[in-house]
Parts: sequence; C-alpha cells; structure tokens
Amino acid sequence: MAEPIITLTTDFGEDSPYVAAMKGVILSINPAARVIDLSHQIPPQDVRYANYFLAAAILYFPADCIHVVVVDPGVGTQRALLHVQVAEQHLLAPDNGCLTNVLHVLGERAIVRLLEERRFWRPVISSTFHGRDILAPVAAHLSQGADPNELGPEVTSWQRLELAEPKNYGDQVKGEVLFVDHFGNLITNIPGEWIERTPVGLRVGEQPCPEFRWVASYGAAPIGSLVVLTSSTGLVEIAVTNGNAAQRLSAVVGMAISIELGVVSERSKQ
Amino acid sequence: MAEPIITLTTDFGEDSPYVAAMKGVILSINPAARVIDLSHQIPPQDVRYANYFLAAAILYFPADCIHVVVVDPGVGTQRALLHVQVAEQHLLAPDNGCLTNVLHVLGERAIVRLLEERRFWRPVISSTFHGRDILAPVAAHLSQGADPNELGPEVTSWQRLELAEPKNYGDQVKGEVLFVDHFGNLITNIPGEWIERTPVGLRVGEQPCPEFRWVASYGAAPIGSLVVLTSSTGLVEIAVTNGNAAQRLSAVVGMAISIELGVVSERSKQ
Amino acid sequence: MAEPIITLTTDFGEDSPYVAAMKGVILSINPAARVIDLSHQIPPQDVRYANYFLAAAILYFPADCIHVVVVDPGVGTQRALLHVQVAEQHLLAPDNGCLTNVLHVLGERAIVRLLEERRFWRPVISSTFHGRDILAPVAAHLSQGADPNELGPEVTSWQRLELAEPKNYGDQVKGEVLFVDHFGNLITNIPGEWIERTPVGLRVGEQPCPEFRWVASYGAAPIGSLVVLTSSTGLVEIAVTNGNAAQRLSAVVGMAISIELGVVSERSKQ
Repeated sequence: MAEPIITLTTDFGEDSPYVAAMKGVILSINPAARVIDLSHQIPPQDVRYANYFLAAAILYFPADCIHVVVVDPGVGTQRALLHVQVAEQHLLAPDNGCLTNVLHVLGERAIVRLLEERRFWRPVISSTFHGRDILAPVAAHLSQGADPNELGPEVTSWQRLELAEPKNYGDQVKGEVLFVDHFGNLITNIPGEWIERTPVGLRVGEQPCPEFRWVASYGAAPIGSLVVLTSSTGLVEIAVTNGNAAQRLSAVVGMAISIELGVVSERSKQ
Repeated sequence: MAEPIITLTTDFGEDSPYVAAMKGVILSINPAARVIDLSHQIPPQDVRYANYFLAAAILYFPADCIHVVVVDPGVGTQRALLHVQVAEQHLLAPDNGCLTNVLHVLGERAIVRLLEERRFWRPVISSTFHGRDILAPVAAHLSQGADPNELGPEVTSWQRLELAEPKNYGDQVKGEVLFVDHFGNLITNIPGEWIERTPVGLRVGEQPCPEFRWVASYGAAPIGSLVVLTSSTGLVEIAVTNGNAAQRLSAVVGMAISIELGVVSERSKQ
Repeated sequence: MAEPIITLTTDFGEDSPYVAAMKGVILSINPAARVIDLSHQIPPQDVRYANYFLAAAILYFPADCIHVVVVDPGVGTQRALLHVQVAEQHLLAPDNGCLTNVLHVLGERAIVRLLEERRFWRPVISSTFHGRDILAPVAAHLSQGADPNELGPEVTSWQRLELAEPKNYGDQVKGEVLFVDHFGNLITNIPGEWIERTPVGLRVGEQPCPEFRWVASYGAAPIGSLVVLTSSTGLVEIAVTNGNAAQRLSAVVGMAISIELGVVSERSKQ
C-alpha cells in the first residue's frame, strides 16, 4: 500500500525556514509520510486567496490525503484550529474562513476543534507557529492512524467568509474578480454556464473594454488579444492571449466585472 | 522496487492552484506515484526557456522516469500533445518545440501523439488546462504500466525550434546568450571546448568588455570580476564572481556574444 | 522501513535547472531515495543566511536524514566539502561557515573532508557545480549505506562564521537583526528569555520606535501595530501585526537592536 500523503499549503514563502521545520516535525513522527507541497506562495495572511486556492486544488486529491493549511493571521489568539473530514479527505486549518469554498463544494461532514489533546502536539507550543507545533504533528499522527474524533470536541459552527454573489440578469451578468493567477488571468466568480449568448459588452471595474473576444481557448485569438472564456474551473475568465490581463487592465481581486450578453447564441465549444 | 517517479516542469508558478491540481489528479489515479518538482518557474509561455531547462535537467534522470512538461501557449488549439520515449525515459509535452534540445542530446526514439485514447484522460477536457486533464492522467497511467503505443498514433514529424548555431572562426568564436540563470550568469550556445586558446577579447551585444578573465571557476578571480569560463553544462559562460553578470551588462537571452582568441594556449583546468 | 530521506537547501532558485540536475543525479544512483526540498531561495552566495536557515530547520528532522547544502561561493577553489555526522543526521556542505549555528546547537560529532574518494562522485567533476558532481552523488551513496568514514579524511578544524554576540546589561539588551523572514518579521539574536521585564524602549538602527507593544503573539495587538515578541525559535522578534516590519522600519540584516527594560515584570505568556 502506498505511504500516507500529507500536503502543505502555507503563506511562508520558501526563503524562510518555517516550511522546512514543518517537514522535519512531520517526518520525525512518521518517517514514512510523503510530504507534498501545494504552495508556499499564498500571499501573507491572505485568507481569501487561500480559500480560492484550496477550492481549486483539494477536490482533485484522493481519499485519505491529509491537507495542512497554514495561513493564520490569528495565530496565538483564541481562534480555533480545526480538523475537517470531508470527501474522505482530512483538512487541518485555522478556523478563519479559508475552508469556506472547499467545504461548500465538497459538502461538510465532521469537524472537530483541536483542543487539549496535547499528546498529538509538540511538547512546547509557541505563540507564533502553530503550524509547526500543532498542525504538523497532528497531521503526522493522523497519517499513522490516529482517530480524528480523539483530536478534540466536535464543533457545529465555524468561520465562513462572506463572499459576493454573482448576479444573472439574463442579458447581463455581474460579478467580481475572485483571483488573479500567475499569468495575470482574471478568474471571476461568474459561472461559465451563465454565458449562454455571445457577450457583446465587457466592463472591468469602471473601465469599458470595447475590444474583446469570447473564445473557447487562449489560442483561438491572435497573441495579445483580450479574451473572455470559461476557465479550467468552470468560471468566467478574462485573459490576454500570451499576455497579462491584470497588468493591461490594472485589475485586482474584488474589482467588479460586468458582461452584457447579445442575442446570438453562444459560440460552439469543442 | 522503488515507486514510479513523475516529474513536473511548468510555467504555472507556485501562487496558482494549477500545480496542486495536477498533483491531485496524478495521485488519484496512482496513489503510489512519487511526484517531483523540477520547476514551476519557467517564464510564462516561454518555450525556448523550457527547451534549455529540459536539456540541462532530463539527461541526469534514470530510466523509467516520466517527465510532464506544461509550457503550453497553444493549449486548446490544434497543437498536438506528445509522448516521447527516449533514453528509456518518458516525456509528455505539447508539440511546440520545447523538446528540441533534449531530443537532440538524447537521440529520439519513439514519438506518439496523444489522440483519441480518452480512457487515459480525465472524463471532461477543458480548453485551457490540458496539463491537468490529459498530461497528468496519462503520466499516472504510464506509471501503472500503460503501454505508450496505446496512447495514440505514432508521429514522424514534430516541432523543432530554430536555434542559432554558434560559429567558430578559429581566432574568433561567435554565439549568443542561450539562458540567464538565477545568479545572472549568462550561459551561451558556444561549446566550451572551442576555447582552445586564451580569450583576449569579449563583446556582449554591441558592448566591448575590456576587463575580463578566462578562469576555471568563479573563485579563481577576485569578487566582482567579470569572468569567462566553461559552465557546468559544457558551454561558455559569462559571470561576475559573487555578482550578477546579466545586471552588470544589461544582457538578455539572444544577445550576441563574440570572443576573440589569442595565440597563447588555454589555461590549465583542474 | 521508510525509504531514506535526502533534503536539499540551495541558492539555485527554481528558475534554473540546477536543482533538477541534482535530483536526477540522486535518483540515478538511488531510485528509492526521497528527495525533499527545504529551500532553493537562499539569497545567492549568502552563507550567513544559510547558516541561520539551517539552524532553524535541521534540528526538527529525525535520525538518518541526509541534508545537502549548496550555498557555495567558493566552488572550484580549494575550499573543502564536508560530511558532518551530528545528532544521528548527516550534513553535506561546503566548508564556508554555513554550518556554524547548526553545529553549535546540535553539538558536533564527526567531520570528514570529501577528498579523493572519487568512487562516490560523478565520473567528471566540473569546476562550477560540485552540488551536482560531488555532494548529490555522495548523498545518494550514503542513503544506500556507504560508510561516512570512507568519504575522506577526518578534519579537526572547520570554518565558523564570526557572529555578533548579543549583550545583556540588565535594564537594557542589545543585539542585531539576524534574519528577515518572508513576512518582513525581524528575528534578532537576542534570546527571548532575556526580556524578563516589560520593554519600555526600542531602537532599530538609529531609529527610536516610541510606539510598540510587548506581546505574546501577533494577534494580541491591533492590525498594523509594531510589536516585540518571542519568535518561534526563542529569539526576540520585531513584527508588524499582519504587516511588514522590515519595510516599515527599512530594516535589514545586521542592523542594531536595542531594547530598554522597565521595572514591571513581564506580561504573562499563555
């Protein structure tokens, strides 16, 4: 049988020794664990970014994976640390809303608060690094078969981010930029299936974008074109082919997106 | 026996969830696969960069490794996806020239186009993320013993980059900057063995560099010196000892390099 | 039994093919080795940074791990390459002081110089990449059970960095910035336990910081506050809650830190 998988998602960067310390703690408890990096480039303390990132990543993993998330602006305060069992996977994260979308997509199952069961923690708990002192050792013990129900008491409420809802007016859809990816593509919160007719108008923030194309893929328009398409996660995406839409449009997360739909039916997708 | 190795080389960065999604897809199909990051910092859509990177990396890996490359400006167009079996290794990549040098070095063997054999793909194929939907699952199936010949039809032609050839005039060698590494060292396309006599002149672009030293290693010249040496891949390299040659010389990939050779024979190498 | 672990800490970045080459060399010798990235973002040639990084990372790892460190401004010169066996772990690194603190913390045991035993090296040794040609293959052979004493002769002296000592005057403690982490937190060389009474004065470089709080954790002060606390490694740390202290104070490594202590006893820690 394959050795257990523990993934790490943090805002630690790779220039600090914090990720290395977590890997060491995990391997000291369970030397057979396979530690897999999802990202250490979540922007510092950006819980909304972590929320989007996790929702676009966790659902692809198989049963029994243990995912450790350390984006934790509230470390050392009374904020809880959670263990969530969902879709047969394990999530360990601060209770700050970073799991909002992943639990919305996967459906929640059982949540416990990591509390008092110090036998699963490091002997000394710092006030500033619970990733190393609590989450990493708990993940390692889970990978060795510890019972999630022994980690602490069940909780019935947990933090959810308030996320803006997109709106569908039939001939117009409105939403906002949810995420700017590494390429500068703008991933919006507008479902791709809402674009049932060809878009004829696009506004990013206050800025009308008269020149754009509604395409099935980046390559369907000349290099440098502003395009609107359905992203790989099923959301409306605004991109510049082989370019950077965020830079061209000075767009940032949270900026309003409005798309006007014409009367012609949608371009056929391959 | 060791578990199968799948490596990833992409331009996705680590701030986007795309690498994580690919890892999840691979592990969902083959939970025993060992996924190894080569780089996710290939500059966006930079096929030439990927080409150099792969040629300097793949040859060190052992037989049976499966290398997945996703630098794919043509995703969603008619560009092919290839499986190449070479030197007992497997390469999975878009047919855009990114394998030009690695196949030149390793010698090509058998190339098939990933086509129609959807049983090795994810059930739904997006138009923008074939790394997740096609290449990752194909890699996972290969790691479980799938037969490469069943992935699709054999192809006899594939994309090659047109790469400038260096020139050897005996008392002068000319080439260009092939790659600027993380340290700002300029790796040229000039073979190190062409420098059979001591260089007496160096020109980077239009710029003559009167002060430089021909050395065997960085440490052979005082800190801050401009040096010319043979890189660890056997090519002529221009560096600043403990400094950044690209910054000092405002040098970029493609810039012309000209080296004049004197009459004295080469410095002895250790 | 779990497969052997080899960790990598380098200044290579992830945009260059050097890390990939090392992974390939290791796996070619021992395909079962588990290669774990600690960091490839050590600033180029920054031995002091590597020294701090390693001291904050290595002690968390279990026995038998093999740690390869390539921050090596002296590559190709007469500087030695070392194998150190300490706390049942293996360290492979250039003899340039990067192990100063880790050996201070863990206590040294047995150090050999990698010399002449070319059967553990790659067949051809470049002058610029001993990480690939010597350290990686030696690590792989160690992971297969090679005897450290066969790697080369024992050495009795090795390079140590001269590190500034913090000073404790009772009502004042003085030190310097040891490390600036990914969040812009300033980790000083002042032991946290020296702050036995409430700090009433703080000076960073020449700059007095009249507004600051002495807290147990970041979350104990409003967002944007300048705080002084004990870091997760037990040292005094200067931070801005959910912000970047290095940017706000224009602070860099080596900058003097002075803390004046009041007469009131320390705030209770949780």
